[in-house]
Amino acid sequence: MASYEGASWRNSMRVRFDFSNLLAGVVGDENGVSEQALRGLTGQAAAAAKWLQQLRAGGKAEWLDLPYQREITERVVAAGEAIAQRCDTFVVLGIGGSALGAIALQIALHHPFYNQLGPEQRGHRPRIYVLDNVDPDFVAGALDLLDLKHTVFNVVTKSGSTSETMAQLAIVRERLQSAVGSVAAEQIVATTDPSQGDLRTLAEREGYRIFDIPPTVGGRFSVLSPVGLLPAAVSGVDVNALLAGAAEADRYCRDDDLFDNPALLSAASLYLLDQQGKRITVMMPYSQRLCGVADWFRQLWAESLGKIKMVDGTVRHIGLTPVTALGVTDQHSQVQLYMDGPSDKVIIFLGVDRFDRTLKIPSTKLGLASLDYLGGHSLNELINAERLATTVALTANGRPNYTILLPEVNAFTVGQVLYTLEVQTALIGKLLGIDPFNQPGVEAGKAATYALMGRKGYEAEAKRIAKQMGGNRWIL
Amino acid sequence: MASYEGASWRNSMRVRFDFSNLLAGVVGDENGVSEQALRGLTGQAAAAAKWLQQLRAGGKAEWLDLPYQREITERVVAAGEAIAQRCDTFVVLGIGGSALGAIALQIALHHPFYNQLGPEQRGHRPRIYVLDNVDPDFVAGALDLLDLKHTVFNVVTKSGSTSETMAQLAIVRERLQSAVGSVAAEQIVATTDPSQGDLRTLAEREGYRIFDIPPTVGGRFSVLSPVGLLPAAVSGVDVNALLAGAAEADRYCRDDDLFDNPALLSAASLYLLDQQGKRITVMMPYSQRLCGVADWFRQLWAESLGKIKMVDGTVRHIGLTPVTALGVTDQHSQVQLYMDGPSDKVIIFLGVDRFDRTLKIPSTKLGLASLDYLGGHSLNELINAERLATTVALTANGRPNYTILLPEVNAFTVGQVLYTLEVQTALIGKLLGIDPFNQPGVEAGKAATYALMGRKGYEAEAKRIAKQMGGNRWIL
Repeated sequence: MASYEGASWRNSMRVRFDFSNLLAGVVGDENGVSEQALRGLTGQAAAAAKWLQQLRAGGKAEWLDLPYQREITERVVAAGEAIAQRCDTFVVLGIGGSALGAIALQIALHHPFYNQLGPEQRGHRPRIYVLDNVDPDFVAGALDLLDLKHTVFNVVTKSGSTSETMAQLAIVRERLQSAVGSVAAEQIVATTDPSQGDLRTLAEREGYRIFDIPPTVGGRFSVLSPVGLLPAAVSGVDVNALLAGAAEADRYCRDDDLFDNPALLSAASLYLLDQQGKRITVMMPYSQRLCGVADWFRQLWAESLGKIKMVDGTVRHIGLTPVTALGVTDQHSQVQLYMDGPSDKVIIFLGVDRFDRTLKIPSTKLGLASLDYLGGHSLNELINAERLATTVALTANGRPNYTILLPEVNAFTVGQVLYTLEVQTALIGKLLGIDPFNQPGVEAGKAATYALMGRKGYEAEAKRIAKQMGGNRWIL
Repeated sequence: MASYEGASWRNSMRVRFDFSNLLAGVVGDENGVSEQALRGLTGQAAAAAKWLQQLRAGGKAEWLDLPYQREITERVVAAGEAIAQRCDTFVVLGIGGSALGAIALQIALHHPFYNQLGPEQRGHRPRIYVLDNVDPDFVAGALDLLDLKHTVFNVVTKSGSTSETMAQLAIVRERLQSAVGSVAAEQIVATTDPSQGDLRTLAEREGYRIFDIPPTVGGRFSVLSPVGLLPAAVSGVDVNALLAGAAEADRYCRDDDLFDNPALLSAASLYLLDQQGKRITVMMPYSQRLCGVADWFRQLWAESLGKIKMVDGTVRHIGLTPVTALGVTDQHSQVQLYMDGPSDKVIIFLGVDRFDRTLKIPSTKLGLASLDYLGGHSLNELINAERLATTVALTANGRPNYTILLPEVNAFTVGQVLYTLEVQTALIGKLLGIDPFNQPGVEAGKAATYALMGRKGYEAEAKRIAKQMGGNRWIL
C-alpha cells in the first residue's frame, strides 16, 4: 500500500461517481434531475464551493486541511506503534462523532472478525473496541473481556464534558487504579479540545497522553483527526494512505464547476431532488466492510442538515433523512419498499470492483435449477450482479440513484469516500441555506438529562419536566 | 426463567405501551392523533382485527399460532440440545427473514460479546454466526473462524431456492465433504418448505435433518418457527419462555377494541399519522440488546407495507419507511434531525426498566462539573434518564412518539414484543388497504440478477438490461 505515491497506481485507485441514474432522461422528469435544472444551479453551486474554500482559507474549516497535517500524523503513527506494543486491547470511550469514524475505519480496513482472530492473525495488533453507549449490559459485557493490565483506553470528547463518555471514564479510571495503581494514567489517552474542557483539565492534572482536536473540526468532521486516526494507527491501518486518499479527493472536490466536481454535483442533485419531495437519502453499500462508512455518513448527513433555522434567520424545518441499508442483505428487507413504496428516496449505492478475497461457487450439476446455474461463478460475481440488478430494477421503476464505485476497499479509496462525503454535506448545507456545522437541537435533551440526573442548576427544568409528564398517561 | 408459568411473575413481566405522547392534546393537532379521529376509526379497526382472526381461523395466518406448536417446539429443543453437544460452532446460512429473527434473538438474549467468550462462559454452548450476505470478504472471513469438523450449518430458505443461500450451501457442502467425507450430511440442517423446493429435494436426497416452515408463514413472520427457534435453542435460549411471551401478547393483541389492544391502537395511530404526512417510522431502543429487534422490525415493516397495489386493484404507492436508531448512541447522530428537521416521523422507543447488570459511576469529587454530578449514580440511571429526556424534548417539540416498555429483556418479554409487532404490521396493512403478506416488488431485481449471471431462460432480460445500461453514462 506504500504505492499510493505512484501516479499510475493512484489513478487506478480513483473512486468513480456514476450519476447516470439520477437524470430525468433516465428515471423520468418527476423523479430525476434535468440538465437544465442543474445548469440553472451552476451559479449557486459555484458560490457554495467558493464559500467553503473561503471558510477554509480563513481557518474556519480545518477539517478540510486534515489530509495535510504531517506533524500530527507522525505523532499519531508513533503513538499508535508504541501503544500497540504495550497492550493487547485498545478501547475507545466515545460516542457519536467520537466513535463512528473509528468504527468505520475498523470495519472497512480489517478482517471482518478482527477481534475474534488470534494475535498472529491480527499481526500482533491489539483488539479494538469502541464503547459508544452507556447500556450497562453492553459496557459491563465489554469489561468482562478485558485484562486491565494490558488495556489502553482512549477517551474521546471534543467538549471534554460529554456525559456518556465522562461516566465511562469515571468507571474505567477507578478500575484501572485498582488494577494497576499509580501507572493507571499511562493507560489512558485523551483526545479533546486543545485548550479547554474538563477532560483536558483532568488529563493534564493526571498526566494522560493527549491528542488535540482542532477547534473548527466538529465531531462529525473529525475522522481524519486523531479521533479517527489513533485507533486506526494502533490497529495497523496505513493512515498515510488514508490521508493521501483524502488529499486525492480534495483535488477533485474543490472545483467550482459542478460538472467536474462529484461532491458538488451530488450536493446539487440531492438539493434539487429534495425540492421534488425526495427527502430520504438511502446509503446502500454492496460491501459488508463499508457498512460502517454508511453509519458514519448517517450522522454526518442527519446532524448537519436537520435544522430549524435558516442562515438568514427564517424558521423552517429542513433536513434529509439518512437511511442505511446493506447490499445484498437488505434486498431481502428494504428493496420491496424502495421499488413500490412512495417515491420519496434517492439511493446512493457504494460498489466495489475487486474484493480482497475470492470465493468460487462449486459446480454442483445436481439437476436442481436454483443451484446449478450458480456453479462456476463466484460470490464476487454474484454480489456485483445483484448490485447491478438492483440498480437496473430501481432505475426502470423511476427511482433515482447513483453509485460511488471503489476499485478496491483500501485506506486510499476509503479516504477519498470519507472526504468527498464531508465536502458534499457542507455544500448541500449551503445550498439548503442552513448552517451545516452546528447542532442546536440536541441541547433540550441534554438539559432534560441533567435535570433528571439531579444536576445542580437544573431544578427549574426538573419541575417543568414533572409538569409535562404529570398529565394523564395513556398506557396499555 | 421457568417461572413464566406463574401468573404473578407473568404479570410483573407484562410489556407496557405508553401512547401518551401520540395524542393531539400533548403534541398538537397537526402532529398527534385526536381521540375523535381514533373513535372514528373504531369500526374499521375492529374489522381489521376480525379479518386477521378469520384468516387465522381459516389456516391462512399460521404465524399467529406458532406460540402453541408444542410438538414442533419439543423437537426443536431436543435437536438444539443434540447439536449443542456435538459442535462448537453453529452457522446459519440465510438472508432476510431467514436471518433477522435469529440475529434478533441472539443479540437480545445472550452476552453482548457471546462469540468472544470462552466455552465455559458460554455455558458450553456453540458460537453462533449468521451469514446473511454474499460479500466474499465477509463469507471467507467467517470461514476462517471455523473448524469444519466441529461446525453445524443450518441452511434456511422458505422457497428452497434463494440465490445467496444456495450459493453459500454449495460452497459449504463441498468444503464439508472435503473435511469430513461422507458424514458431511450430518452437519447440515435444512429449514424449508414442508413439501417443495430445491433445498427440500437436496436435503431429502442427501439425508440432512429437516425442519419445516409452515406454508402460510412468510419469512418475515417466521421468527417463532424453527427458523428462529433452532438457532435460539442451540445457544440455550429458553424457547418455551419466548413462546409463552408470544402467547401472552396474543391475549392482549386479539381484542377488537382498539382502546384495549396495543397492536391495534399502534396500527390505527400510525395509520392516521401516515395520512398526516408522517411516513417515517423510527424504532429507537434504549438497550443495545434490542437493536436486533429493531432491525428485524425494519424488514417486517418495509416489506409488508411498501406496496404499489391496493387490495381493491387500484395503483398507489403506499408505505411507511422504517428507520432504526439506537439510544443513547444515536442521540449523537440522529436526534438533531428528529428535533428540528421535517415533522415527518413517528418515533417508537423501546425502553427497559431493569437491566441485567448494574454499573455504578464512582464519586470523583475532582472539582470538574461534568464529571462530579454523575458520581454515585449508575449507567442504569443514566441511560433511562436519557431516554426520558429525549422523549420529553421531542414531545415538547411536537414530535409524536410512543414507548414500548419492557420490565426486563428476557425471552418472555421479547416474545411479547415480537408477536405484538407482527400483529400490528398485519393490522396496519389492512387499514392501508394493501396485502401485507406479499412482496411482488423484488421479482424484477431477481430476474435481472439471473440475467446478469447468465441463467438459462433469461436471455431476453439480459438484452433488455444491456439496452437500459447502454445509453450515455455520466461518470465523474
